[in-house]
Amino acid sequence: MDIIVLKPDTSEENIRHILKKLESKGLKTNVSQGTERTIIGVIGDTSKVTEEEEDAIRAITGVENVVRIVKPYKLASRDFKKENTEISVNGTVIGGRKIQVIAGPCAVENRTMMVDIAEKVKAAGATFIRGGAYKPRTSPYSFQGLGEEGLKYLAEASKKTGLPVVTEIMDPRDMDVIMEYTDIIQIGARNMQNFRLLLEVGSVNKPVLLKRGLSSTIKEWLMSAEYIMSRGNHEVMLCERGIRTFETATRNTLDLSAVPLLKQMTHLPVVVDPSHGVGKLDLIAPMAKAAVAAGADALIIEVHTNPEEALSDGEQSLKPGLFAKLMQEMKPVAQAVGREI
Amino acid sequence: MDIIVLKPDTSEENIRHILKKLESKGLKTNVSQGTERTIIGVIGDTSKVTEEEEDAIRAITGVENVVRIVKPYKLASRDFKKENTEISVNGTVIGGRKIQVIAGPCAVENRTMMVDIAEKVKAAGATFIRGGAYKPRTSPYSFQGLGEEGLKYLAEASKKTGLPVVTEIMDPRDMDVIMEYTDIIQIGARNMQNFRLLLEVGSVNKPVLLKRGLSSTIKEWLMSAEYIMSRGNHEVMLCERGIRTFETATRNTLDLSAVPLLKQMTHLPVVVDPSHGVGKLDLIAPMAKAAVAAGADALIIEVHTNPEEALSDGEQSLKPGLFAKLMQEMKPVAQAVGREI
Amino acid sequence: MDIIVLKPDTSEENIRHILKKLESKGLKTNVSQGTERTIIGVIGDTSKVTEEEEDAIRAITGVENVVRIVKPYKLASRDFKKENTEISVNGTVIGGRKIQVIAGPCAVENRTMMVDIAEKVKAAGATFIRGGAYKPRTSPYSFQGLGEEGLKYLAEASKKTGLPVVTEIMDPRDMDVIMEYTDIIQIGARNMQNFRLLLEVGSVNKPVLLKRGLSSTIKEWLMSAEYIMSRGNHEVMLCERGIRTFETATRNTLDLSAVPLLKQMTHLPVVVDPSHGVGKLDLIAPMAKAAVAAGADALIIEVHTNPEEALSDGEQSLKPGLFAKLMQEMKPVAQAVGREI
Amino acid sequence: MDIIVLKPDTSEENIRHILKKLESKGLKTNVSQGTERTIIGVIGDTSKVTEEEEDAIRAITGVENVVRIVKPYKLASRDFKKENTEISVNGTVIGGRKIQVIAGPCAVENRTMMVDIAEKVKAAGATFIRGGAYKPRTSPYSFQGLGEEGLKYLAEASKKTGLPVVTEIMDPRDMDVIMEYTDIIQIGARNMQNFRLLLEVGSVNKPVLLKRGLSSTIKEWLMSAEYIMSRGNHEVMLCERGIRTFETATRNTLDLSAVPLLKQMTHLPVVVDPSHGVGKLDLIAPMAKAAVAAGADALIIEVHTNPEEALSDGEQSLKPGLFAKLMQEMKPVAQAVGREI
Repeated sequence: MDIIVLKPDTSEENIRHILKKLESKGLKTNVSQGTERTIIGVIGDTSKVTEEEEDAIRAITGVENVVRIVKPYKLASRDFKKENTEISVNGTVIGGRKIQVIAGPCAVENRTMMVDIAEKVKAAGATFIRGGAYKPRTSPYSFQGLGEEGLKYLAEASKKTGLPVVTEIMDPRDMDVIMEYTDIIQIGARNMQNFRLLLEVGSVNKPVLLKRGLSSTIKEWLMSAEYIMSRGNHEVMLCERGIRTFETATRNTLDLSAVPLLKQMTHLPVVVDPSHGVGKLDLIAPMAKAAVAAGADALIIEVHTNPEEALSDGEQSLKPGLFAKLMQEMKPVAQAVGREI
Repeated sequence: MDIIVLKPDTSEENIRHILKKLESKGLKTNVSQGTERTIIGVIGDTSKVTEEEEDAIRAITGVENVVRIVKPYKLASRDFKKENTEISVNGTVIGGRKIQVIAGPCAVENRTMMVDIAEKVKAAGATFIRGGAYKPRTSPYSFQGLGEEGLKYLAEASKKTGLPVVTEIMDPRDMDVIMEYTDIIQIGARNMQNFRLLLEVGSVNKPVLLKRGLSSTIKEWLMSAEYIMSRGNHEVMLCERGIRTFETATRNTLDLSAVPLLKQMTHLPVVVDPSHGVGKLDLIAPMAKAAVAAGADALIIEVHTNPEEALSDGEQSLKPGLFAKLMQEMKPVAQAVGREI
Repeated sequence: MDIIVLKPDTSEENIRHILKKLESKGLKTNVSQGTERTIIGVIGDTSKVTEEEEDAIRAITGVENVVRIVKPYKLASRDFKKENTEISVNGTVIGGRKIQVIAGPCAVENRTMMVDIAEKVKAAGATFIRGGAYKPRTSPYSFQGLGEEGLKYLAEASKKTGLPVVTEIMDPRDMDVIMEYTDIIQIGARNMQNFRLLLEVGSVNKPVLLKRGLSSTIKEWLMSAEYIMSRGNHEVMLCERGIRTFETATRNTLDLSAVPLLKQMTHLPVVVDPSHGVGKLDLIAPMAKAAVAAGADALIIEVHTNPEEALSDGEQSLKPGLFAKLMQEMKPVAQAVGREI
Repeated sequence: MDIIVLKPDTSEENIRHILKKLESKGLKTNVSQGTERTIIGVIGDTSKVTEEEEDAIRAITGVENVVRIVKPYKLASRDFKKENTEISVNGTVIGGRKIQVIAGPCAVENRTMMVDIAEKVKAAGATFIRGGAYKPRTSPYSFQGLGEEGLKYLAEASKKTGLPVVTEIMDPRDMDVIMEYTDIIQIGARNMQNFRLLLEVGSVNKPVLLKRGLSSTIKEWLMSAEYIMSRGNHEVMLCERGIRTFETATRNTLDLSAVPLLKQMTHLPVVVDPSHGVGKLDLIAPMAKAAVAAGADALIIEVHTNPEEALSDGEQSLKPGLFAKLMQEMKPVAQAVGREI
C-alpha cells in the first residue's frame, strides 16, 4: 500500500485524473479528505510499482508527495525469509554462532608474502584469507594488482593453509578467471552500484561479499543485494566498511549501528571491515571488538608482514603479532554476547 | 611549526612581502624551493597564531595554502597531560576502571515518575540519574520542560537513591538555579558551540558533560572542551551521541570510532549516548555493548516507565526491565575488555 | 492528517490499544487493511500533535512507522501566508523587487576602519552595513570582538553613510545593548538552534536575519524561524551560508537550491552569504551572481580594506575595489531575472 | 615536495630509519626541528610517490602525518595546461564562449517519442540530444533501457535534427555498440570510480562526459578524469549533478561552487545537470540560470513530452514548452556574464 498526498486546492477534476491514472496501472484507490490535505490510499500489492512509476506519479499536477509503505526489496527482506541465512564455504559457516575472521593483505604482492601471511593468520585463528589481485585505485599511476598471477598465489596460500579465499572482482570480463580461484567473490564499495557486475555475480554459484558504498544508504545497499539475488544467487553477505561523512579524523565513519539494524531488516549475514572503516592502525582493535559486541557475523581485517613496504593500505594493516593479539582479545567479547570466534 | 605553500610563479618580491609579514608577527621563517612549489616553514611556537591570523596569511597574494602542524587545543590534549583525567562525583569516579552508567528519562515529567525511575535504575545498577528540566526542542509548540520544578524532583530522586544528578543547561541565565540542584552540568549537542555558555560553565566548579554537536568534527569538539578548560574548569567529559550523515534509517550515526580516537587525542573521559545515537529501541542494547567494547568510560541511557506516554523521546526509551537486562548483558562485555560495570 | 504504519502480524488487540491511545488524544482514526501492512489514518487537524507525542506513538508495540503529512511549522509557511513578506528597514525593503546588498567586515576592528569600509561599500552600492562586535570563535584564544565599543563604531559608520546596520547577537544578556545600536539582529549559524536566544529575538520589534545551521535541514531552519515568529516577531529573513558536507575543497557547500525551494515553502525573504558559503576569495563573485540568478532577495558579502591584516575571515574578504566590480557585474544578472540591484 | 610530521618523542634512531626509507625510494630529505614537532621535508619531484607509498610511509613508527603538496592529478590540472580545453563535436564547441545545452529524456522509450522530443528541443535551441539506452537503476525490477534498439532511435533522432548525441555506457562490453551510435560517451555518477570503464573510454577517440559521483570529492573526480586522460583521450568534460548530503528536501545538493572552483583547478569544460541535481520540477529553471551565472560551459536538462508516463525521472522532466521558456530566460543571464546560449 502507498499513499499519495495532494497539494492544497487541487481541483476535483485533477483528483479524478489522478485516480484514473492509478486505475490504469491496475491499482485500487481510496480517497480521504483531511482538513489540510487530501490523501489517496493506493490499495493492494503496490510492490510492483517501480521507482520510475512513482516518479511519474509525482509528475502529475496536484501531487505533492508519494509515501511508499512497501519495501522495494523482497528477497533480501526479513519479511520474505524469517530465519538467518547461513552461508557454508567448504564447511565453514558464515551467519551461524561462530564469528568468522577473514584476514590477509590488501593486495597480493608476491608468492612468498602471500603464503607467509596466510600461514600466520591461520595460526592466529583466521578462517578465511583475503587479498586483492585486481585493485580499484583512485590514481591511474598506482599499483593496480597482479591480476591472474595474484590469484594463483592466493590459491597456493589457500592450498597450504586450507583456508578458503575471498577476492574482489572489478570487471565482468574477469569473471571466468576469478571463478577459477576464489571461494567468495567480493564486490568493492566503489562497485556497489555497478549494476551489470551485480547481475553477473548473481548468475554464478559462489557466495558474494557485498561491501557498502561510501555514501550508500542501507536501503540502497539491500537493493544491490536484491540485484544479485534476483538472478538466483541467494548467498550474499553484507559488509559494512565505513561511510563518508564530514569527519576527516578517521578515513571513513564506521557505522556499527548498521549491524543490528541489518539483522532486523534482512536475513543475510553481516560482516564488518574495521580496517577500511577507520584507516588508523590503533583504532582497528577496539573497533573490531565493538563490531563483535554489536553482533557482526564475520570480520575482515587487513594483515601485512611489513606494512612499511606494503603496496597498498600500509597504514591500516596489522602486523601478524598484533593480529594474533586481537584474535585473543576478541574471544571473551564474543563469549560475552553468546558467540564464539 | 606551520607550513605555507606558495602558488607557482610567485614573484621574489611577493615572497619577500610574505616573509616580512610573518616576521612582523614575531615568527621565524625558512624558505625551501621545490621543483613545483616554494614552501615557507614557519619555525618556533606557532601555537599562538590564531585561526584568524592564519586566514589573514591565506589572504596574502601568492599564498596557496597554510598547513598547520600545531594542534589548536592545548589543555584538552594528551600532549599536555599524559595520564587519564578521572572525575570524582561524590566518590563515584568517571574515567577509571569502572564504567559508569547514567540513566533516566529524557525530560522530568513529574515527581512520582522521576522518583520511581530513579529507584528502578538504581536497583538495576545505574550510578547516576539524568533528566531534563530545560529541554531544547525543535518546535516552539512542544513541551519545554518543567524548569526549576523539574530540578526539585531530580534532587528529590537523588536524595532518595543517593545517585548524583546530570542535567542540561540551555541558557547562561539559568546557571544559579542549576548549580543548586545538579552534580554534573550537561551541555547539549545544539549548544556545543554556544561559546558564551561554554565560558559560563568553565567558570564554575562542577564537572561538565559536553555532548558532541550534530555535525561537529572531533577537533571542534575538543576546541569546545578547551573553551571550558580555558576558564579554569578542567573537569570535562566528552559525550558521543551520534552525528548527522546522509543515512536516515537511524536517527543519527553513532560514531563509535570517536571513542578510541579521543582516548589517544585527549586525557578527558569519554561517554557514549546510544539512545540519541540511534533513536531506535531495538538498537540501543547492541550499541551500548559495542560502546563498552570500544572503550567508553561511561554510558548515558534513556529509561522511562511508560514510553507510550513519555513527553519526549518515547521511541528511544528503554523500560526499566529492558534496562536491567542490558545492565546484566554489559557486565561480561566490560570484563572482556578489562573493565567492570 | 497523519498515517501510522503497523508491523506485519500486529494482533487485533494491539490495534485496538493503538486506536484507543489515539482517540484518548482526541484524534479520529480510519483503519485500512492492505495486503502487506495495516495502516491507520489519523483524521482531522493533527498539527497540534507534537514531535514528542509522535515519538510516544512510535513507542507503542506494533507501530512500525509514523508518517506525518502536516508541516510542523505554520506561521513561516507559504500555506499560512500566500504573499511575500517584505521587511522595511528605514525605508529600504528586503523581499521586494530590488535585491539588497549587506556589506562590511567580519568583525568590527576599530573606528577608522569601520567608517572607511562603510563609506566605500556605500559608494559601490551596498544598502546595509555589517560587522560583528560579538564574535563566535572556535578557539577561546581568538579575538572575540570589541563588544559595545564595536557597536558604537558601527553606529557611527551608519550615521555617516545613512546605511542601516546588521550585527550578531550571541547571548540573551546582550539584548539591551544590541537593540540600542542595530537595525537588523543576526542569529549566527552556530546559534540557529539556541532556542532561548530565538525566543528572545522573537520578543523584540527588530527584523531578524536567521542564518542556517551548518548541518540544519530546511525544515529545522523553518522551525527556528517559527520559534521567533511564535513570540510575535514576524520579520524574519533566512540566510543560506553553506552547509557542511564531505567536500573540503570549499569551506562549506553553498546550497543555492535552498533559495528557490524556500521561495515555495515560505513567504519570508531569502538572503545568501557567498563569503562564508565558499570561503575562497575567487569563488565569491561567481557564487554571488549565481545567488542572484537563483532568486535571492539579498546578499551579505564580507568586505575589508586590508584582508592581510583582518582580525577574522581575511581569506574570504573582498577588497573594496573587487566589491565595487562585483556590484557592477551583478546588475545585468539581476535585470536578466527581472530584478534590480 | 611533501612534508612528514613526526610524533613527539620520536627517537633519533627512528628518524634515521625514516630518512633511510625515503632515500631508498630516491627522495631527498631535509629535517627541521621545531619546538613541538620535528618535520621532514621531502624535496624534489614527489609526484611519482603514489598514495600507496604515502600509506606505507604513514605506517612507519614515529610518523604522525604526511602532508602532500603535489597534486595527484597532472594531465587534468590547470598547471599542466593553462588554456581552456575546447571540445568540438561536429563543429559544436563545448568549452568556448557559447554555452551548449544538451536536452532529452532520461531514457529512450520508443522511436516516435525520441524523434518528437529531439525536434522540440532543437526548435527551442538545444545543441545536443541525450537519452539513455542502458539505464543504471537501483532496483533490478525497474525498466533497464532498450539497449541497442534505443541507440538506433537516438541515431535516428540525431539524423533528423542534426544534433549530436550524448548517451551513457555502463559496461565495457557495450563499448563497440555505443561507439557506433554516440557522439559523446557519458559515464554516470555511479560509475565515476568504475576504473576499468574509465580506462576503456580513455582508449577511444570520442569525448567523454564524466558525471561526479554522489559522494565524490572534487579531487577524486579529477583523478577519474586523469584515469581517462592517462590512456590518451584528453577530451573529457566534468558534469556536476548534485552530491549526497544530509538534506533530503532536494534529491541531491547541487554544488554550484564546484563550477568556478573547477575552472581554477582544471582546463577541462564544466557541465551542470540541474535536473538530477535538484530532482524537483520547479527548481530546475532557477538552478539552470544560476549554473549559467556561475560559469558553466554547458547544461544537461531532462525534457519529456509526457512526464506523467515517463519510464524514468518523470518528476524532474520539463515539458517542451517549459524547456523552451527556460532557454529564453537563460539567454539574458548568459549575456550578463559575457557568454551566449
